[in-house]
Amino acid sequence: MKTIGVLTSGGDAPGMNAAIRAVVRTALARGVETVGIRRGYAGMIAADFEPLSSRSVGGIARWGGTILQTARSLEFQTPEGFQEALENIRSYGIEGVVVIGGDGSLNGARALQNAGFPTVGVPGSIDNDLCGTDMAIGVDTATNTILEAIDKVKDTASSHERAFLIEVMGRRSGYLALAAGIAGGAEVIIVPEYPTSIDQILAEMRATRVRGKPHFIVIVAEGATPKAMEIREAMSATKTGFDARLTVLGHVQRGGSPSAADRLLATKLGSAAVDALLEGKTGVMVGIQGTQTALVPYDEVLACVRPPEEELLRLGTIIGL
Amino acid sequence: MKTIGVLTSGGDAPGMNAAIRAVVRTALARGVETVGIRRGYAGMIAADFEPLSSRSVGGIARWGGTILQTARSLEFQTPEGFQEALENIRSYGIEGVVVIGGDGSLNGARALQNAGFPTVGVPGSIDNDLCGTDMAIGVDTATNTILEAIDKVKDTASSHERAFLIEVMGRRSGYLALAAGIAGGAEVIIVPEYPTSIDQILAEMRATRVRGKPHFIVIVAEGATPKAMEIREAMSATKTGFDARLTVLGHVQRGGSPSAADRLLATKLGSAAVDALLEGKTGVMVGIQGTQTALVPYDEVLACVRPPEEELLRLGTIIGL
Amino acid sequence: MKTIGVLTSGGDAPGMNAAIRAVVRTALARGVETVGIRRGYAGMIAADFEPLSSRSVGGIARWGGTILQTARSLEFQTPEGFQEALENIRSYGIEGVVVIGGDGSLNGARALQNAGFPTVGVPGSIDNDLCGTDMAIGVDTATNTILEAIDKVKDTASSHERAFLIEVMGRRSGYLALAAGIAGGAEVIIVPEYPTSIDQILAEMRATRVRGKPHFIVIVAEGATPKAMEIREAMSATKTGFDARLTVLGHVQRGGSPSAADRLLATKLGSAAVDALLEGKTGVMVGIQGTQTALVPYDEVLACVRPPEEELLRLGTIIGL
Amino acid sequence: MKTIGVLTSGGDAPGMNAAIRAVVRTALARGVETVGIRRGYAGMIAADFEPLSSRSVGGIARWGGTILQTARSLEFQTPEGFQEALENIRSYGIEGVVVIGGDGSLNGARALQNAGFPTVGVPGSIDNDLCGTDMAIGVDTATNTILEAIDKVKDTASSHERAFLIEVMGRRSGYLALAAGIAGGAEVIIVPEYPTSIDQILAEMRATRVRGKPHFIVIVAEGATPKAMEIREAMSATKTGFDARLTVLGHVQRGGSPSAADRLLATKLGSAAVDALLEGKTGVMVGIQGTQTALVPYDEVLACVRPPEEELLRLGTIIGL
Repeated sequence: MKTIGVLTSGGDAPGMNAAIRAVVRTALARGVETVGIRRGYAGMIAADFEPLSSRSVGGIARWGGTILQTARSLEFQTPEGFQEALENIRSYGIEGVVVIGGDGSLNGARALQNAGFPTVGVPGSIDNDLCGTDMAIGVDTATNTILEAIDKVKDTASSHERAFLIEVMGRRSGYLALAAGIAGGAEVIIVPEYPTSIDQILAEMRATRVRGKPHFIVIVAEGATPKAMEIREAMSATKTGFDARLTVLGHVQRGGSPSAADRLLATKLGSAAVDALLEGKTGVMVGIQGTQTALVPYDEVLACVRPPEEELLRLGTIIGL
Repeated sequence: MKTIGVLTSGGDAPGMNAAIRAVVRTALARGVETVGIRRGYAGMIAADFEPLSSRSVGGIARWGGTILQTARSLEFQTPEGFQEALENIRSYGIEGVVVIGGDGSLNGARALQNAGFPTVGVPGSIDNDLCGTDMAIGVDTATNTILEAIDKVKDTASSHERAFLIEVMGRRSGYLALAAGIAGGAEVIIVPEYPTSIDQILAEMRATRVRGKPHFIVIVAEGATPKAMEIREAMSATKTGFDARLTVLGHVQRGGSPSAADRLLATKLGSAAVDALLEGKTGVMVGIQGTQTALVPYDEVLACVRPPEEELLRLGTIIGL
Repeated sequence: MKTIGVLTSGGDAPGMNAAIRAVVRTALARGVETVGIRRGYAGMIAADFEPLSSRSVGGIARWGGTILQTARSLEFQTPEGFQEALENIRSYGIEGVVVIGGDGSLNGARALQNAGFPTVGVPGSIDNDLCGTDMAIGVDTATNTILEAIDKVKDTASSHERAFLIEVMGRRSGYLALAAGIAGGAEVIIVPEYPTSIDQILAEMRATRVRGKPHFIVIVAEGATPKAMEIREAMSATKTGFDARLTVLGHVQRGGSPSAADRLLATKLGSAAVDALLEGKTGVMVGIQGTQTALVPYDEVLACVRPPEEELLRLGTIIGL
Repeated sequence: MKTIGVLTSGGDAPGMNAAIRAVVRTALARGVETVGIRRGYAGMIAADFEPLSSRSVGGIARWGGTILQTARSLEFQTPEGFQEALENIRSYGIEGVVVIGGDGSLNGARALQNAGFPTVGVPGSIDNDLCGTDMAIGVDTATNTILEAIDKVKDTASSHERAFLIEVMGRRSGYLALAAGIAGGAEVIIVPEYPTSIDQILAEMRATRVRGKPHFIVIVAEGATPKAMEIREAMSATKTGFDARLTVLGHVQRGGSPSAADRLLATKLGSAAVDALLEGKTGVMVGIQGTQTALVPYDEVLACVRPPEEELLRLGTIIGL
């Protein structure tokens, strides 16, 4: 290959820029040019390309978001859109593509691969819901962002009449809620994988009071049952008219200067993706397993539903004591 | 005086601990003992006192919250509660009190002063709604916390189909919304002092699109009209089904390690409060005006409603261009 | 005026970008175009200009440094260089210039003004050594950076056999050392304005031990006597072979995402500078005094040597108790 | 076992408090009491013990340093000191100890184990120089601290006449320098494992200029050859009188609020250490390998010299392009 492409797709994840930097500079070190495909698969259809030099990725690793922007493209899922995308990259001279994103993005990469166009995936998704890798790019920064919020909430006056609810990202995965909740010492952590009830939460709250803890902090993933807002309403509707304060972090969790761990992970994965692509090991996602990178076939990644780490569930209970 | 008291009251504000440190060490430098009164006026009634040494305030300035805790006391507003509080501090040998807090706290300090017990107030309130001082303790840290949230939200993918709403503190005052919104370059800032309408906000959004700005960020003070939640619902109910993401910062804004400016301000004010108390200049709040402290009578502070800074309102519009 | 110029000069200060943003958007709101002059007066001589639109300053306020870069120009101080600079800006259609920087930068602005070309200055310098303004742009962020270092050093194991020396910026001014040292609770703060001796510092160290403080942290401005390195060597040369750890912050203090206070200050000053320029009030620096901006003639600013704040010197001693 | 002990020893590492919290609460969940041994092995000899309840470790996880303090004890390495330590813990009813620290600390733990007293080690050391674990507690936070310094230095004015040298920790190990240098995009990273020469560094600098990079940042581990100070002097002694600015981070790197990754790692390791101790799997260090904990015999850990990660060395060169 003489020229490869790189794109970011799906939700932003801090560290994507470090992955782009690693792709460009690894390719360069191997005598290969890199073309940036803007706005994910939408930009593939629109032929929105820009050649990337070592200088054009200088200094980008510290910024959140992605210089290539992301988008979700319904058109790419149509046969016409897909064909147009394929023709565009081929006619531009792109011979293989590194796709950085979550499961939707890898689905697109698999479709290209199956159509005979070589691709390698890099896991970028703050939810940490992808199989085949210990961590995805963006998870570490997002966890730190949530942790800072927990730490700050803990600063405010202790009161036995008050609870704090913090809603965090995670439609299907409780990883962020668990990791940040354990690190921050939350009393209760509610994840999508294990629905619970308002009654159980209120019972836990009473037990916490009895144990003498000076605060009651509940981390609620956005996909959990019950929802943070429902818990809040239930608490104020109790006889005691309990005062529950709500923080909804929202997209704050997608931003911020990427942590060292995220930039380092992104650099390892992005660089290994180029190596795989140039060595013909395509149709795979590059994951991290321990300190080493590993190549995992798309089918294996996409067929799998990542279960919550048993150890984290156990620790969540112990640390809440 | 041989012994003075210090208390924090009302909502927590980052920097209160630096003020406590300054009170204790300034008193010490003048040969005077300091007694900490825990949980504000409630602790005065409960005789919840602890002598504070230079060592017991060592290292506290960097923590959010207040080592003396705060509480709101309805009992203190009754004649019986007030008398009991007064007797308790007198019988403990406390001859004057430094009160750190917002307008409710200063009201209590004025009541004590009017009953013949010397007090000096120190403005601590993240809302910056007190007259007689350029800044209150906690405002700078809270503004930085909001600004970090705005910066992070700006990192996420630009999209012409998306708006971001960030709800910040400020029941009656738009200071935090304005200061953070201007610093962060928000497109629209909605403050309690100037009610607006959903229609105006939507019109502003369309104008912003026309000007080519890649994002639309609205900062909404919690006491503003319309409310952040109402704006969100209105946006998704428009024909275009506009996607508005909401962040509610909540009590995160009250916490965090105090900024240098907050610790320095708290040190200046806390130290000057002790000087004023020992020199018999009581019944006043110590404010900052420029780089100098100033003593402002309670009546002057409490009779005044601080208007929004004209200059900030003007800049909010210009920077949103 | 139809077109104005803006430049940054001298040492970088966080917040300069927010000032540039404010200049461009205030001018725009008044129907005036802004031209960026790159690399300070050097760029004036090289005719290194670029028109700035509202979009080209979008999102810059959160970055440290300055998008226009800075440089120090010896050539501008020669009659030939000066004339060339003047001709270049005039022939480009620039009718007035906003100069953002320290005293060297304001000197250049005064020279232009004296040659009949209208300029207005904005104080940008982390040292806070300029007269005529309570604060310069960049001071607040730099103070926070130093404070974080002090906080982190305090975390490490207390030991009665160890001292920590932190060298901070300040060739002639002790402001940063004092402000951060007081906020961080340093035991000793050494400023350029008040030379001291190794013996005095060692005596202070012994006194601190006697008072039972668990650490001994010394903040040393780079222009102070004795120097941090000398103190360190003297400590390890004492009979006890005292272990002194040194941190030299260096240029770390010039960088970082500007704090809310710095961005807000830069916005106020940058905007007021354009107003002054367009209203013909030139030959002045815009300072902040309290919450209001003020116009101060260059001669007044440049003839003055800002003394250390008496109050800070006093507090430095008290808080070190 | 009914009662176990926990101690921290050697250099502070952020996250040690989270490990202590996990030890206490895991023991509690298994019906076992925990005793804190203060100041490492020195406190074992001095019988400086305090029972730790769930409440006494509440809120500590977010602070840097260690609530138990650390110390280095020469006395423990004498037969008399060792015997006294052993008798003290036995007579206090402590039946096993969790030792948190680096290789020196694990050496002590092995000595106790060999004397028939059960111990389990937890790797805490910012240098990441221990075998048997992917990461030690404190590494992630220290890397982030260094990265922030690099990011800030990058903000300052680009200049082709200036280099920035940042000295970081690492007497024998280049991990921190490599990890932070890659994440931060440093041009050259100098580690203890691969001595280089001033000439090579100057040659690299000239090549960087030719490639058009706007800055030249060199990360130097404190144990590297040449030393940061030597490089600086050599640079200013070149004919061009090159201006090299030096930052020495020092003990700043040991402090700071632990990152989410450090707190989570410390929680996993501390909890698993208690499990191992109570299940009789002693004489081992608990390491992290991927997302799982692993028990590694002391001999295996202590006989090994951890080599620098090949992949990081390679990436350091590529990213510097």
